[in-house]
Amino acid sequence: MTYASNRQLTLLRKLGRKKYRHRERLFLIEGDRAVRQILKNKVVGIEALFFDDEQDYSAQEYWKALIETHESALLDNRHFAEISDTKHPQGVLALCRMPGETSVEKMGQGRRGIIVVLDAIQDPGNLGTIIRTASWFGAAGIVSGKGTVDLFHPKVVRSTAGATGVLPHLNGELPMVLADFEKMGWNILLLDKSEASVPLATVGRPEKTILVVGNEAHGIDPQLLGEKRVQVEIPPAEVQPKVESLNAAIAASIALYSLGC
Amino acid sequence: MTYASNRQLTLLRKLGRKKYRHRERLFLIEGDRAVRQILKNKVVGIEALFFDDEQDYSAQEYWKALIETHESALLDNRHFAEISDTKHPQGVLALCRMPGETSVEKMGQGRRGIIVVLDAIQDPGNLGTIIRTASWFGAAGIVSGKGTVDLFHPKVVRSTAGATGVLPHLNGELPMVLADFEKMGWNILLLDKSEASVPLATVGRPEKTILVVGNEAHGIDPQLLGEKRVQVEIPPAEVQPKVESLNAAIAASIALYSLGC
Repeated sequence: MTYASNRQLTLLRKLGRKKYRHRERLFLIEGDRAVRQILKNKVVGIEALFFDDEQDYSAQEYWKALIETHESALLDNRHFAEISDTKHPQGVLALCRMPGETSVEKMGQGRRGIIVVLDAIQDPGNLGTIIRTASWFGAAGIVSGKGTVDLFHPKVVRSTAGATGVLPHLNGELPMVLADFEKMGWNILLLDKSEASVPLATVGRPEKTILVVGNEAHGIDPQLLGEKRVQVEIPPAEVQPKVESLNAAIAASIALYSLGC
Repeated sequence: MTYASNRQLTLLRKLGRKKYRHRERLFLIEGDRAVRQILKNKVVGIEALFFDDEQDYSAQEYWKALIETHESALLDNRHFAEISDTKHPQGVLALCRMPGETSVEKMGQGRRGIIVVLDAIQDPGNLGTIIRTASWFGAAGIVSGKGTVDLFHPKVVRSTAGATGVLPHLNGELPMVLADFEKMGWNILLLDKSEASVPLATVGRPEKTILVVGNEAHGIDPQLLGEKRVQVEIPPAEVQPKVESLNAAIAASIALYSLGC
């Protein structure tokens, strides 16, 4: 294996920034398990593999086969650490093509399913975990609004554990997107702890459900409330639980399970 | 407010290490919301509050009142950053007394409830999130086995969002601890994806349930299997989900919800 060119190095460095990821339509996936999962999924296109020159990946049969069949290059250990988003890099990363967005019309055309809408989810770990759970349960799609962290942020990608690109996704202005889905017969549930919320266990499971997950600190944007939209909550124990709320990814995942996603 | 003494500084630095936390029976909680929640809970004893000298906490009425009534000191911004476990410290931390452990007998004496047993949970964020969810749903206790990260690790504490110390807890040798609980009439569920697992939704909800959560990569330790113990799983969508598993904290939280903790 030869070393990455300066041009490749510059590209890899730039992909730490959202602007460049979206301009180049490329992003990075890091780590042995995550890269294996992405390769196995055959959903996301791989441009090239990069290996830390101080970790002996080419000695392993699995990686040897891939190095022969994929564009592959070494990175100087210091460069790898610089490009890696983790404190203790595992020494392998894949340069991947960003899957394209779908449209509201396409995502909404199914007869059943759950679409997960992310209203300003700011923690990359939360976002990645929600995508991972949504993939596990076979959700119909992911919609992210303004203020939600980039789906291709390195930590989001890592937290999806290989689920990046698996589900159809789109970005949009949530008030408009939700209105469009509603016209197509989708029922909107807002996961929120408020006076108007009803317990999750008491709501029906309509065939076409949109689950809106709110911001970690501020909950659902009041602009997204609506007459036909139901606010649901996951009630705490009767004894005062001494904790303010559930983590956003936990709440979203419980809702996906409970709604029989 | 005066500056922390050198002795206090040395102590705060040492508490980054498990050995010292347990020797001193002290630990740290960081961040505005987390410290407020701990103060509000009145469960964990506060020894002192520390503030970053470049963040003007004493100008806020809430903190002013607490500075007057609690031992409080300033930390030089550079020292604060060094002691903080986060990249972007919020400028407040509480030195807290570590709550004592309970015994199997005491934890197991209740007539109903769910006890969460952690078999080698290694990610601090996962552990803290499980404790947060268990507190939300009013679990009867937390048991951690060898190989589970320290409950008072700064990132665990941060991820509990104020739930540290709220539930009874104990550390122990899990094979023995589980056998003891079984003798006291507790039913053991092992959250695991294996040939022998049955879907979570099909298991009953006995009044006294132990939920064992396995290691993130290796699942449940085979030593913990047993004739009367039921392996449960959270099945994926019928379509191949292209993701290997759920995150451990997500799986544990769905189980707690589903079992009506």
